[in-house]
Amino acid sequence: MKQSRLTTKTRKEAPKDEVSLNAQLLMRAGFVDKLTAGVYSFLPLGFRVLKKIENIIREEMVAVGGQEILMPTLHPKANWEQTGRWDTMDDLYKVEDASGRQFGLGPTHEEVVVPLMQKFANSYKDFPFAVFQIQNKFRMELRAKSGLMRGREFFMKDLYSFHLDEKDMDEYYEKVKAAYVRIFQRAGIGEKTHLTFASGGSFSKYSHEFQTVSGAGEDLIYICQKCSTAINKEIKEETPVCPECGGADFSEEKAIETGNIFKLKTKFSAPFGLEISDEKGEKKTVIMGCYGIGLNRMMGTVVELFSDEKGIVWPQSIAPFAVHLISLNQDEEAQRIYEQLQREGIEVLFDDRDARAGEKFADSDLIGIPWRVVVSGKTISAGGVEVKKRSEEKAEVMSVEELLRKMKIGK
Amino acid sequence: MKQSRLTTKTRKEAPKDEVSLNAQLLMRAGFVDKLTAGVYSFLPLGFRVLKKIENIIREEMVAVGGQEILMPTLHPKANWEQTGRWDTMDDLYKVEDASGRQFGLGPTHEEVVVPLMQKFANSYKDFPFAVFQIQNKFRMELRAKSGLMRGREFFMKDLYSFHLDEKDMDEYYEKVKAAYVRIFQRAGIGEKTHLTFASGGSFSKYSHEFQTVSGAGEDLIYICQKCSTAINKEIKEETPVCPECGGADFSEEKAIETGNIFKLKTKFSAPFGLEISDEKGEKKTVIMGCYGIGLNRMMGTVVELFSDEKGIVWPQSIAPFAVHLISLNQDEEAQRIYEQLQREGIEVLFDDRDARAGEKFADSDLIGIPWRVVVSGKTISAGGVEVKKRSEEKAEVMSVEELLRKMKIGK
Repeated sequence: MKQSRLTTKTRKEAPKDEVSLNAQLLMRAGFVDKLTAGVYSFLPLGFRVLKKIENIIREEMVAVGGQEILMPTLHPKANWEQTGRWDTMDDLYKVEDASGRQFGLGPTHEEVVVPLMQKFANSYKDFPFAVFQIQNKFRMELRAKSGLMRGREFFMKDLYSFHLDEKDMDEYYEKVKAAYVRIFQRAGIGEKTHLTFASGGSFSKYSHEFQTVSGAGEDLIYICQKCSTAINKEIKEETPVCPECGGADFSEEKAIETGNIFKLKTKFSAPFGLEISDEKGEKKTVIMGCYGIGLNRMMGTVVELFSDEKGIVWPQSIAPFAVHLISLNQDEEAQRIYEQLQREGIEVLFDDRDARAGEKFADSDLIGIPWRVVVSGKTISAGGVEVKKRSEEKAEVMSVEELLRKMKIGK
Repeated sequence: MKQSRLTTKTRKEAPKDEVSLNAQLLMRAGFVDKLTAGVYSFLPLGFRVLKKIENIIREEMVAVGGQEILMPTLHPKANWEQTGRWDTMDDLYKVEDASGRQFGLGPTHEEVVVPLMQKFANSYKDFPFAVFQIQNKFRMELRAKSGLMRGREFFMKDLYSFHLDEKDMDEYYEKVKAAYVRIFQRAGIGEKTHLTFASGGSFSKYSHEFQTVSGAGEDLIYICQKCSTAINKEIKEETPVCPECGGADFSEEKAIETGNIFKLKTKFSAPFGLEISDEKGEKKTVIMGCYGIGLNRMMGTVVELFSDEKGIVWPQSIAPFAVHLISLNQDEEAQRIYEQLQREGIEVLFDDRDARAGEKFADSDLIGIPWRVVVSGKTISAGGVEVKKRSEEKAEVMSVEELLRKMKIGK
C-alpha cells in the first residue's frame, strides 16, 4: 500500500486523556482511534494487525477441532434469567426496545450457545464437540483507562466445548491449553506468558489464566521459580506451594491476563437442562469447558511489551506489513522495488510521500514495521537498498535479492 | 469436513413461528438458527457462506480503492446529537450505563466516520479517499418477520467516500455502481438485480437502489422495458418516463432492496464542520457518498431465488462447500476420494454418517451444495463415482479425474 494514499497519519502527541502506553502509541501511529473511553475504531493499519491475530487464533482453534460460528450480540432477557445472571452480572449492558423487549449485549455467550447446541446435540454419538466465534463483546466498564486492555467494546474469541464426562473434558482442556501456548508463541509474547492457576469457582478446583508479565498489568502473579508456572493472588493466599510441581519459591510480577480457560462442568448446561442419555441409557448432564482470548487486549499487550522511545516494534507474525519501503527522492526505482517485493508475496507499506527523510524515518520507527528498506541516491550508488530491522540498530546496504533471502530465513 | 462431526443437523420442519421461505430453508438445513425474531446465529455452514459473501464484497471494495476499517457499535449520544438524529431516528437502539452515559447501537456510521476522518484529512492533497467496514449493525424493528431480509441485528458493508467537489464524487459514485453490479453478478443474483432510481432526499435528485426481483420482496419496482433500469414507487409517481433512457413502458415487479448507494453531499460533513481549504485557499465543505450492502439480506435473497421443493440450490461462488461427497457403505474408498479432492484444493463436505441412502440424498438436496458425488458399490463397479449437479436432474458415473476436469470448466 502507498503511504500517500493511507487514510491515516501519525501524530506527534497522543490525546491528553489517554493515559495508557499501548493506546498512546497505537493512536499516535494511526492504528486505532478512540471514539470514547474504552471504545476504539480500528484504522487500516490496526485492522490488518487485528486480522493477523484473528487468523492465528482461528488456525489454532480449528486445529483443536473447533467449528466456527457467529452468535448475536442481542441476547433475549429470558436466556439470562435462565441462569440467574440477568440480575447478578453488573457489567451487562441492557437495552429495551419501544415494545418493551429487553436484551443484554453479549459479554460472553454461555446463555446463547447452550440452548443453541441443545437443538442439535441429542445423541451421545454427537459428543464431544466444540464451537467458537471471533466477535465484538460488550462489558459495562464505568472507568476505562487501560487503553486496549479493558474496553467497553472489544473483540474476543470464545470457544465452548461439550462432553459426556469429566475425563473427556479434562483431555480436551489440555489440548486447548497447548493451543493457547502456541497462540501466544506465534503472536510473539510466548516467553513472557505464564500459565497461571486461578480459582475454579464453585465447580472446579482450578481454572487457568494466561498471564503476560508487564508493568502495565493490573494483576499480580507469583511465578514458580522451579517450573515457571504461576499462581494468582487468590491461590497464593490459599496455598504456599505450586500446584504444578510443589515448588515453594515464587517471584511476584505484574501481569496482564491475556487468556483464560475454565472448566464450567454443568454450571450452564444444568440450568438449560442439557442432558443426554449415554450408551447405557443413563441420563447425564453435559459437561462443558469455555476458553477465551481478547484480541484487543492481545494487541495492546504486544505494544506494551514491544516498544521503545521511538515507537512500536511489531513481531513479524502480526505486523501490519513486513516491509516499510522508504523512497528518498528515488520514486521510480522505489516503485520498481515495491512491485518486485509484492510479486514475491511480501506485504509492503511504500512511503512515497513528498516529505523530509527525518519525518519518514520517525514515522517508520513509530509505526514499527519489522523491515525498513530505504532507496536513495546513495543506496543506489552503493548497489542496492539500505536494510534495517526495527528491532536492531545496524543498517546495511544490500541488493533486493539479498534482502529477499534474508527475509526468508531471518524472521 | 466430515458430516458426522458437523455440529448441526438438518431438520424435517422449520419452527412454526418462522414464516419466511429463506429462514425456513436456512434453518432446516442448519445454516442459521433463530435466537429470537430478527436475531440469528450463523452456524458452521452459514458462517462459511457469510465469509464467502464477505470476501466477494471485500475484493470489490478494495478494487475501488476502499480501505478497510472497523468502527465500534457503541456510539456516544453526542455524535448523534450533532446531526440531530438522536431524537429523529426511531429505529436507533439506545443503551445507558450505570453512570448515565448514553450510547446508540450503530445502525449506520456517518456519525462516527465523519469526525474520525476529520482527524486525518486536513489537506486537499488527502482527497479523495474511501473507507469501508463489514460489521454487525442494529435496527429496532418492532416486527421482524422476513427472516434474514430484515433483522434487528445483521451484517452490513458500509463504504463512505470523501471528495473535494461534486464532479469527483459523481465519478467515484459511478465506479462503486459498477462494483455493485459485479458483486451481485458474482453472488449469482446479477441477472435478477436492477439498478433502481430512488429519491435522493433533500440533497440529491436521485439515489440508487439495487433491487432484486423476487416474490418475497417488500418493494415494488417498475422496470423500464427499453433499458432494464428500474424506478421505485416514489419516482414512478413523480415521473412517467425512465430517467435513464426516456422509455415509458414499465413492468411492475416485487423486489428486494439488496443494496443502495447515496450521494450524501454535505449532509453529514456540514454538521461536523468537515471543511478543507482547496488549492486556491478557499474553504469548502467536504462532499460525501455512502454505499451499503446487507450480507444477511444477500444470503436470504439468494435462497429465495435459488431453491426448489427439496431445498437450497447454492451458486458455486458462495456455496459452503463445492462438493457433497456421499459414501454409501464405501467409507474407505470415499475417504480416499475425500483426501484426493482436498489435495486439489476443493472444499468437500463428506457424508460419512451411518445413515440410509434416502436420508443422505434428502439432506444433500436440502443443504444444496453444487456438486453431489456418490461413492457406492455400484459406482465403483461402473468405474468411478456418480456425479450430479444440484441444479440439474441428470446423474452420471465418471472417474474422479473426469469430475475434476468438469469442475474446472463447469462452474
